[in-house]
Amino acid sequence: MKRRVYADNAGTTALSKTALDAMMPYLTESFGNPSAIYSVGREAKKALEWARATIAEAIGAKPEEIYFTGCGTEADNWALRGIAKARGKKGRHIISSAVEHHAITHTLDDLAKDGFEITYLPVDEYGLVSPEDLKKAIREDTILVSIMTANNEIGTIMPVEELGAICRERGVVFHTDAIQAVGHIPIDVSKMNIDLMSIAAHKFRGPKGMGALYARKGIYLPPLLTGGGQEKSRRSGTENVAGAVGMAAALKEAVANLDENMKKVSAMRDRLIQELLKIPYSRLTGHPTKRLPGTASFVFECVEGEAMVLTLDSEGICASSGSACSSASLDPSHVLLAIGLPHEIAHGSLRLSLCETNTEEDVDYMLEVIPKVIERLRAMSPLWEEKIHGKTSE
Amino acid sequence: MKRRVYADNAGTTALSKTALDAMMPYLTESFGNPSAIYSVGREAKKALEWARATIAEAIGAKPEEIYFTGCGTEADNWALRGIAKARGKKGRHIISSAVEHHAITHTLDDLAKDGFEITYLPVDEYGLVSPEDLKKAIREDTILVSIMTANNEIGTIMPVEELGAICRERGVVFHTDAIQAVGHIPIDVSKMNIDLMSIAAHKFRGPKGMGALYARKGIYLPPLLTGGGQEKSRRSGTENVAGAVGMAAALKEAVANLDENMKKVSAMRDRLIQELLKIPYSRLTGHPTKRLPGTASFVFECVEGEAMVLTLDSEGICASSGSACSSASLDPSHVLLAIGLPHEIAHGSLRLSLCETNTEEDVDYMLEVIPKVIERLRAMSPLWEEKIHGKTSE
Repeated sequence: MKRRVYADNAGTTALSKTALDAMMPYLTESFGNPSAIYSVGREAKKALEWARATIAEAIGAKPEEIYFTGCGTEADNWALRGIAKARGKKGRHIISSAVEHHAITHTLDDLAKDGFEITYLPVDEYGLVSPEDLKKAIREDTILVSIMTANNEIGTIMPVEELGAICRERGVVFHTDAIQAVGHIPIDVSKMNIDLMSIAAHKFRGPKGMGALYARKGIYLPPLLTGGGQEKSRRSGTENVAGAVGMAAALKEAVANLDENMKKVSAMRDRLIQELLKIPYSRLTGHPTKRLPGTASFVFECVEGEAMVLTLDSEGICASSGSACSSASLDPSHVLLAIGLPHEIAHGSLRLSLCETNTEEDVDYMLEVIPKVIERLRAMSPLWEEKIHGKTSE
Repeated sequence: MKRRVYADNAGTTALSKTALDAMMPYLTESFGNPSAIYSVGREAKKALEWARATIAEAIGAKPEEIYFTGCGTEADNWALRGIAKARGKKGRHIISSAVEHHAITHTLDDLAKDGFEITYLPVDEYGLVSPEDLKKAIREDTILVSIMTANNEIGTIMPVEELGAICRERGVVFHTDAIQAVGHIPIDVSKMNIDLMSIAAHKFRGPKGMGALYARKGIYLPPLLTGGGQEKSRRSGTENVAGAVGMAAALKEAVANLDENMKKVSAMRDRLIQELLKIPYSRLTGHPTKRLPGTASFVFECVEGEAMVLTLDSEGICASSGSACSSASLDPSHVLLAIGLPHEIAHGSLRLSLCETNTEEDVDYMLEVIPKVIERLRAMSPLWEEKIHGKTSE
């Protein structure tokens, strides 16, 4: 019987049992609309506010600074488009980084069409933005800096606290897409000088279709979705009570076990990295130590990422190549290009992303299968033939 | 033991067991990301596409014309903001009606600030827009008409097919907020000449946090949420697979039983209307026959809507007053003002909204309780005293 190993937790996670159990009452008898003033509605409202307070506590925020959204992408769009709208008359310059998720870069592309000027800070070979570069890039007309907390493809953790401090000092709003980080590493919005932060529940074993935006008190952010006036008129739409409760329960659980999970998961990650780097012509992508506990990311020369993913799938291993959320794309990853990898090598990327539900046996199995798969794929590759034996006979 | 009667189904509905059962696999073992190319992802993708095809079939659309969103409000915002963006250079005039949901009116307020001119068509005493008025209102620079299929407060069903035909003939995009209608009355986007249509799952016993926009093939609609490129790059964000499947299962069930449900529910509605109109100084709001099967809506003079809702709640009846989604608001309903009711009477509104889970016993109980509650509240009202006995002795 073939083992199944799910190693794409940076793509999405399995809903935790705690989260599902917490959601069930709101998918069954407690189905009220939180805006309704009768008891069934008030019961739903109470659950929603429990979720808000629980999430706030997990990230060092106040409950009234948490706004629920339909996904992390909505939170990212809202933060960027909202600040552009609110401060567009004050200035038209926005700073971001070369390795952001498409929810940021494609939204900035849209804003660029509306006359905003975007500076993408470069990253070093590990995917790190330099605080010095940020300092130099901030101008009189800079209204927003958006730099992710941790990278979705290579796991690199940015120096958010420093970046945030620079923004705070210069009076520029600082947004961070923390979608990969929340629930996986310690996050404290206050200590980290964050003004706006995006969260997605399904990245930390909460439900899909649920996100949140932290917006520091005093930051004016006009709504992206207008309507019935929910979320203090900042995000209209009947609230997804079950989703909010599931997100909160999952995050509470993740944070309660954070130290233990980080220790367990990073040990598995390190074993994967140590062993898989023994494969010839392989290298680690992302920072060797400043990286998410669960993310082991590589490039293997002369192998196509998609072929690796599909072959691993046939062996029962779920992994990804290129960007987390759009593996269907064949473009080389902008992240891998930004850290200086040439096109042909960027194509051979593999991301194994673990969480606390993975086991040492999962790692054993991956270490047994992956080297063989790469060897097999290389054996069929003319590029590999050329690399090893010089020019082919053709 | 006190009976509990839920009569706020236009506010939100209880998730159907069929929908929950359909969702469960995607909240447990089948948790994959539909964008992932490995088997667990493809399984999720397959479920998502089943949901899309099922919803399409239920409304006479093609699967590729259905786009999932995080709620009905998002669908409304997307339709309006998207067309404004796509066609804003062609024209700056938008037509809507005086009785739309706030997801429409507040979004149009925003567009007005951006230089769009909005014409709100008046409605008659029943809440109906006149097709003749629409014909006259369309100008050379009209880019969009948005008129709801059925009203959320008074249940009136608009002449959508005629309105759509006028728009089609004049080459103007026609959007309808069908959030109250889908799953409750027959909807065929093709027959009804609809270009864009908003849907919300939780109004027809699907889950909260899930909506969809129908966009007719050929209608260019730029995305509201940009990012990973999901939904053919028109709505980014990791797809809420469980939500989509739940919405589809609920809609399939509703449509399969539509005739039977309409017959059952409208009979209960009519009994409520017939009996409650025996209360002195009461009147029906909305059209006597062109109305949603489940909506019985009234105004009672010299009673405060909020007091009615709270007192009924204490008797185990969940009902609403004013707008569906923001009952917390104390403003008189713009819908009731638009049908010509004076402020003081609009404040005395009560909406009882039924669905197929309600029973004749529910109706019996409401007919027993509601007249007494109104009598009791009026007995405490100086306005009532004055109305019945002339000027009070004070």
